Amino acid sequence: MTQTPVATLKNLATELRIDSIQSTTEGGSGHPTTCMSAAEIMSVLFYAEMRYDPKNPQNPDNDRFVLSKGHAAPILYAAWAHAGLFPREELLKLRRLDSDLEGHPTPRLPFVDVATGSLGQGICAAVGTALNARLIASDYRTYVLLGDGESAEGSVWEAANAARYHKLDNLCGIVDVNGLGQSMPTQFDHQMEEAAARWRAFGWYTQVVDGHDVDALLKALVAARGTKGQPSMILARTLKGKGVKAVEGKEGWHGKPFKKGEEADQAVAELKAQLTPGTPPPTIAAPVSKTRDASEPDYSKVAAPSYKPGAQVATREAWGTALAALGSVDPRVVALDADVKNSTFSDRFEKAHPNRFFQNFIAEQVMVGAAMGLGARGAIAFPSTFACFLTRAADFIRMAGLSNVRHSLHVKLTGSHSGVSIGEDGPSQMALEDLAMMRAVPNCTVLYPSDAVSAERLVVEMAKTPGLVYMRTSRPKTDILYGLDEQFPVGGSKTLYESDSDVATVVAAGITLFEARKAYEQLKAQGVNIRVIDAYSVQPIDAATLVEAAKATRGIVITVEDHYAAGGLGDAVAEALAPAGFIVQRLAVHKIPRSGHPDELLDRYGISARHIVDAVQQAR
Amino acid sequence: MTQTPVATLKNLATELRIDSIQSTTEGGSGHPTTCMSAAEIMSVLFYAEMRYDPKNPQNPDNDRFVLSKGHAAPILYAAWAHAGLFPREELLKLRRLDSDLEGHPTPRLPFVDVATGSLGQGICAAVGTALNARLIASDYRTYVLLGDGESAEGSVWEAANAARYHKLDNLCGIVDVNGLGQSMPTQFDHQMEEAAARWRAFGWYTQVVDGHDVDALLKALVAARGTKGQPSMILARTLKGKGVKAVEGKEGWHGKPFKKGEEADQAVAELKAQLTPGTPPPTIAAPVSKTRDASEPDYSKVAAPSYKPGAQVATREAWGTALAALGSVDPRVVALDADVKNSTFSDRFEKAHPNRFFQNFIAEQVMVGAAMGLGARGAIAFPSTFACFLTRAADFIRMAGLSNVRHSLHVKLTGSHSGVSIGEDGPSQMALEDLAMMRAVPNCTVLYPSDAVSAERLVVEMAKTPGLVYMRTSRPKTDILYGLDEQFPVGGSKTLYESDSDVATVVAAGITLFEARKAYEQLKAQGVNIRVIDAYSVQPIDAATLVEAAKATRGIVITVEDHYAAGGLGDAVAEALAPAGFIVQRLAVHKIPRSGHPDELLDRYGISARHIVDAVQQAR
Repeated sequence: MTQTPVATLKNLATELRIDSIQSTTEGGSGHPTTCMSAAEIMSVLFYAEMRYDPKNPQNPDNDRFVLSKGHAAPILYAAWAHAGLFPREELLKLRRLDSDLEGHPTPRLPFVDVATGSLGQGICAAVGTALNARLIASDYRTYVLLGDGESAEGSVWEAANAARYHKLDNLCGIVDVNGLGQSMPTQFDHQMEEAAARWRAFGWYTQVVDGHDVDALLKALVAARGTKGQPSMILARTLKGKGVKAVEGKEGWHGKPFKKGEEADQAVAELKAQLTPGTPPPTIAAPVSKTRDASEPDYSKVAAPSYKPGAQVATREAWGTALAALGSVDPRVVALDADVKNSTFSDRFEKAHPNRFFQNFIAEQVMVGAAMGLGARGAIAFPSTFACFLTRAADFIRMAGLSNVRHSLHVKLTGSHSGVSIGEDGPSQMALEDLAMMRAVPNCTVLYPSDAVSAERLVVEMAKTPGLVYMRTSRPKTDILYGLDEQFPVGGSKTLYESDSDVATVVAAGITLFEARKAYEQLKAQGVNIRVIDAYSVQPIDAATLVEAAKATRGIVITVEDHYAAGGLGDAVAEALAPAGFIVQRLAVHKIPRSGHPDELLDRYGISARHIVDAVQQAR
Repeated sequence: MTQTPVATLKNLATELRIDSIQSTTEGGSGHPTTCMSAAEIMSVLFYAEMRYDPKNPQNPDNDRFVLSKGHAAPILYAAWAHAGLFPREELLKLRRLDSDLEGHPTPRLPFVDVATGSLGQGICAAVGTALNARLIASDYRTYVLLGDGESAEGSVWEAANAARYHKLDNLCGIVDVNGLGQSMPTQFDHQMEEAAARWRAFGWYTQVVDGHDVDALLKALVAARGTKGQPSMILARTLKGKGVKAVEGKEGWHGKPFKKGEEADQAVAELKAQLTPGTPPPTIAAPVSKTRDASEPDYSKVAAPSYKPGAQVATREAWGTALAALGSVDPRVVALDADVKNSTFSDRFEKAHPNRFFQNFIAEQVMVGAAMGLGARGAIAFPSTFACFLTRAADFIRMAGLSNVRHSLHVKLTGSHSGVSIGEDGPSQMALEDLAMMRAVPNCTVLYPSDAVSAERLVVEMAKTPGLVYMRTSRPKTDILYGLDEQFPVGGSKTLYESDSDVATVVAAGITLFEARKAYEQLKAQGVNIRVIDAYSVQPIDAATLVEAAKATRGIVITVEDHYAAGGLGDAVAEALAPAGFIVQRLAVHKIPRSGHPDELLDRYGISARHIVDAVQQAR
């Protein structure tokens, strides 16, 4: 199938080893032996199997390669250099502050879709890039390289399950089974059948090969191409440090470069001696490129909110309504669920756009990981579940932040059922730390609507805002607060009540805004006016309005949130007001809550109207 | 084997169904049909298979039962009521604020070891309780009940792997394969062989039975007891809502109680008609109780820190040294690793106490989950990995907070390699959000030592402090700051420099304390004095000392941390100072960092001595 001679592929594998050694030696750190085990795999993939434009890694029809074992970054960089994307000399800048060739791959590099380096994530993203091929009707294939140690991560098996469910025959995994982890041999070292039995049980077409045998790898890849409705896994038996006898298959060489001077020189010399002179250059096959409609969707065409006066609607439900409407205008929008679609209301999107709805069953890591793969390749991916269960994917969200370094990872997370206001299901189902988790992603927009109108408008803002966005929705049905035509720009806020005689500013969002309204009414009856601000945009927060309000109310600012005190709305407001010299009094949940009625719980945990009234009275 | 007649077990299954219906109907919410599918499983376990003291659920030799499918809580409560622990009438208080019978189980109840309700976690905890049996030389067995939908969680397969690796033949799982998830049928509905193939591939002794056939369940449990060196899994084919024809095997009944009145009455009547009158009560076998040494360890015997003047030692290394020393004094101390023991230095503990060291390979969820099971049953469990990879277990840490509601979950997490100061490996390996994650666990102590002496002392404090504790350690080797005899109580701080002419307070912890020292020296050379505080106890934080310092330095307080701004040290200090009317200026990482030298990175991201000096100069 390939036009590149086997001798060329063998030589290139050796060259990749040499580059992996030289770059890590020059950088003074890194994982050369982890690269060396994968050299034939990389050579065969990059110079025989994959179809891509080496000058344009972002071509939408290029085959995708995901380095799930991200610590093998040096060989990935070397592979692209040998493909012609950049000069080989650049490789010697590995891990330097002035180079994008970081210790582990990030999308600062145009050939990296998602950041890797936290193991078990790349294969989840690869599920997403494989799904994306279907969405854009491309016949590109996705290849993902894993380590055998990595295969202990549960997320790998979530991906295995999802790929099989979605019948991703355009996805091919290769495990570099070098048998050595960081600190000891892997659980199954070279017992290939242990691993093979697992992949087979998870429904993958599974082959075991000698990972240093170029012919065997080529044949296995051809067989993998031939599967129908089934993802493929190639388990490649390799030796860590292959090619340099002093380190081949030896423990104690993980994450350790060859010492500059004799040690490195000798290793390189040993490898150079393995080169066959005079082989022709490789032939890299071009992708089958398609012309695609690149017009931008007209978001003004998204159906506007439509509610009757007096309606009671939960923000989670409004989110579902708006997501379905958004999907009708923007074909890039996809939704991902983890078997809670009837609670989050993502089932409304599924009903309207079944082909763009991806079920992951109860597996939040692959849900977010697949969304990363989709969102990196042109889709606008909306994964959603209960907000507390997004913590299951916290490390994926962390890596999504890194993957969004160019604001190009279009992942729009939504967490429903936030806070104690969910009521009787109890604390295991209450998200009380999700704002802390999402605010700690530096380039993530965090939205928290209170009513159905703002929820709907903000769903459109999520799509319009590049990169990573999080929306927090609530379970209870609540009043409509806003006019159907109102707009809710990211970074804005709404002042519900203000007067010249306000004695305090109360900043709320979501369910607590309704408590703040009640407090306003109760205080008003006592002749006391307060300013009430809806901080629907938690990150970025509307610092200007908050500072102005703090000035107007003699520095008395009270935040109230259905979230733990650490890392939530109170901290966001405090940070915004600090430069202006204002402090914040925080009303938040401070204890592990219990099951109970929502109103009982809001009161028990200190965030009901009564507590706001008390705080205002004490502060004035 | 059992002395309880089969007819009794059948009747008890029916009674458990009736209770599950009546309690959820009375409570107005909950998951009766999810309970009903498991009724024979629960009956057979609680009244025939398990050995335990029904009046003392905390007996250390009782067989353990973990309800991994936590939403079946009503049947768990009913099972204990029928065992005689509390009156059956109590069940009708389900989900009320004045009852400990919450929507999902928490250790507020004496028969619950760890909180469940986030799926896929109970089986990880069960690995821990099974390991604990070996530690305390008890022959108790651990039973864990899972849902089939739940089995999509990757953490389930991490547990499967760990249990097999540890040869836990004292662990028996049962999957209640009712074929229906929350929003749709499960991936494999009743294709029992799909699931069985997976468990077999993961090395478990796997049986498929009719989950409503009491005889078949009894036989399977006997066979499970007979395995040697292999955990057991029983896949029980069941019907959701079994026993009430109107709902049996029907979609749309997840998390939905029977309506009070006719609907519930009719269901109960239908079940009552299935009872056989006149069966004898069950016989519950007592555990084989052992007498154990209950003496408290004498922590004053832990080897004190021992460093020569001028030594350079990383806090991660000191942590490893101290943990090994602690283990020599307290036999309850165990350590858990995820294949980074040579980086975190937990290998020092392994070397000293190999039988109390548990390897989990690269699987952080089961590492933390198993620690929860161990820490709930008397061990003091120290799971550790790179701090950034603890985010992989964020949902487990969230649930550890709930499990620690009585301060009885002795899990001591440690995260190494925090912040940009790790250098060249790049952002995927840098923890910059771990303080936000851990501070958002309300009852979690958070420690962050700067030097080797404080790190060692604080390891002992971790063991002495009941419940959940987190320690953050750093990668670089740094100076020894403190005398070998100094003590570091939780909630305290150390003031490194103070004078009557301090113009600002700089609060630092960990690596930034060394930057603050440099800033102090540079400013002193300019004739400017600053106060420098080591906030080694981030939660609880030493508010009194901070307020005093703020007062002494005219309210000028600058925090500096190797962490993102959101949720970290700056927020902790700001919250502590707010009631006294002081604001905080935060120096923290605000952008996604790159690879580079540690010193370059500290400077590039605004947390080096230079930035502290600038901040002081601008603020004075």
